Amino acid sequence: MICHPSPNIFKTLPLRRKEFKSRLHIEKNNHSGVFTTASRNSCTKKNYAARGIRTSVEAVLLVELFKHPHLLLLQVRNSIYKLPGGRLRPGESDVDGLKRKLARKLSVNEDGDGSEWEVGECLGMWWRPDFETLVYPFLPPNVKQPKECTKVFLVKLPASRKFIVPKNMRLLAVPLCQVHENHKTYGQIISGVPQLLSKFSFNMIES
Amino acid sequence: MICHPSPNIFKTLPLRRKEFKSRLHIEKNNHSGVFTTASRNSCTKKNYAARGIRTSVEAVLLVELFKHPHLLLLQVRNSIYKLPGGRLRPGESDVDGLKRKLARKLSVNEDGDGSEWEVGECLGMWWRPDFETLVYPFLPPNVKQPKECTKVFLVKLPASRKFIVPKNMRLLAVPLCQVHENHKTYGQIISGVPQLLSKFSFNMIES
Repeated sequence: MICHPSPNIFKTLPLRRKEFKSRLHIEKNNHSGVFTTASRNSCTKKNYAARGIRTSVEAVLLVELFKHPHLLLLQVRNSIYKLPGGRLRPGESDVDGLKRKLARKLSVNEDGDGSEWEVGECLGMWWRPDFETLVYPFLPPNVKQPKECTKVFLVKLPASRKFIVPKNMRLLAVPLCQVHENHKTYGQIISGVPQLLSKFSFNMIES
Repeated sequence: MICHPSPNIFKTLPLRRKEFKSRLHIEKNNHSGVFTTASRNSCTKKNYAARGIRTSVEAVLLVELFKHPHLLLLQVRNSIYKLPGGRLRPGESDVDGLKRKLARKLSVNEDGDGSEWEVGECLGMWWRPDFETLVYPFLPPNVKQPKECTKVFLVKLPASRKFIVPKNMRLLAVPLCQVHENHKTYGQIISGVPQLLSKFSFNMIES
């Protein structure tokens, strides 16, 4: 694993704010798939009993606005923020599962196979030791049977820049400086993304 | 930069707590190099005027205790915790500077050239936009002239496991679960290290 350090450069798509909706063509579809916290917990318990640990994969997608990197987030019912992604099927690889979820939640067409998504490196992993809400960036000592693992991957924005988002969600570009350590609004995983990205220098792509 | 994700495995040295001091032979030397916050700020301002941005390099060194990764930290006067490292000389590379600092602060002998240290990947970078204490894992918008950049590297513990630490410092192994998000005790950079390491699976080396 130890290798000679090399400069990490990540190329992001430049946008001006007024262009965000026009350049990223966002439409709504009828997919929903949203749970309340209570129904989610109940669902998680049933799934854990049936299938064991739940593994989720989520995408960090970046655009450049005002020369500052912005993170693409899905907002559910004006309150909950999510990284695009979701749960793996049994036996499914991280990359295949993430491409499937991106094709379903953000794709240019509803029948997309996900091939337009280029999944990059794993930036971090978060563990949920029980059915409560707290997650940790390590497996806490003495936890033998974690209930959930969430892996966060860096994903390159496809050239098409056309998105169809689920009907009850909005796609937002939020500046990294707003997300950073803002646990209350964005939750632990999203608010930690700026740290996970801190090793990269951001280069804009001329479009 | 985008590459196919591969499993990240980091091998750590296993220790039992009672072995920590005996297996990691820790001695004191007479190096000091410690500043109060006020004298540090004054020094930073003078150095910035003379040489521009200050670049520091710091090392993340891990050992395994009770099957949980522990971070090696230097404690100054029973209060301030630091990752081993320090400021680069003008024109010095990150790796050379970090090896020099590790040789000076932790080396098996005071004349060490640092060649026993294997510096791995850059885990993160932190920016200080002004002479105040807050640092950010990105260059905040509209900051044209940051005053300091701190780069954190993963470093493999050398086989020798003998350390000579500066006289006024103690070498501690602190569990990741204690460091995580504990800004008040460990400061922003150290308390964020567990997140930066979260992509790794930790494998113990049989010793």
